[in-house]
Amino acid sequence: MMKQDDIFYRDDLVMAVINSKFVGNNPGHAIVVPLKHYENLYELPEKEANQIMKVAKEVAIAMKEVRKSDGVMIQQNNEPASGQHAFHYHMHIFPRFEEDHFGENRSNVRVANPKEREPFSSAMKEYFSKRKV
Amino acid sequence: MMKQDDIFYRDDLVMAVINSKFVGNNPGHAIVVPLKHYENLYELPEKEANQIMKVAKEVAIAMKEVRKSDGVMIQQNNEPASGQHAFHYHMHIFPRFEEDHFGENRSNVRVANPKEREPFSSAMKEYFSKRKV
Repeated sequence: MMKQDDIFYRDDLVMAVINSKFVGNNPGHAIVVPLKHYENLYELPEKEANQIMKVAKEVAIAMKEVRKSDGVMIQQNNEPASGQHAFHYHMHIFPRFEEDHFGENRSNVRVANPKEREPFSSAMKEYFSKRKV
Repeated sequence: MMKQDDIFYRDDLVMAVINSKFVGNNPGHAIVVPLKHYENLYELPEKEANQIMKVAKEVAIAMKEVRKSDGVMIQQNNEPASGQHAFHYHMHIFPRFEEDHFGENRSNVRVANPKEREPFSSAMKEYFSKRKV
């Protein structure tokens, strides 16, 4: 589902990607994922965990600047009972807006086509091209 | 609102606490917070961020063992638009259970009295007394 174009940041340990699934009024959210396979937080090594936090912080700041979001929400699900659907660790970073009714819309999820995702990843690529993480 | 008894883990940088607010069918969730004041993720220093991930991972594993949870959800809100109510960075760690209807109950929040919180913090203290983070 993920396309090469969705990736807007990559280093030796992790990458940051525009999620192919759009949620409610918060389209174009990001995920940060380790390059190596770890199913969930329980088995995530310290080196990857540290880099995920470092990149997540920068993505959060980018959401404020690039998306003019009013806030940023981090969500990370472990196991199906927690709503994990893809079994490779990923941390969601949602731009949040006043009156976005995120809670009511959390299950209002659709796969966006690559053309819809492109402006979001381009804007983030532009941001990260000027920034050292 | 937070009581000394709610703290079940503490080191030089962060502490882990049973949240005084219980959510829906997922009472006794934890938060991990830095000792120093940082309002949100945007300003969280790397040293604290790394330790928060390290402790969050151990709390997640503890939720599996101590609470027999079927999954674990991480949520961290930045700014009021994202649902942040306490303006000191905190990462929520929720035990998740099959059919807990967490999404529908996310706004079903009540302040639990210290006696209700005590068994949850005691069990976590017991776990962390045997574990080096």
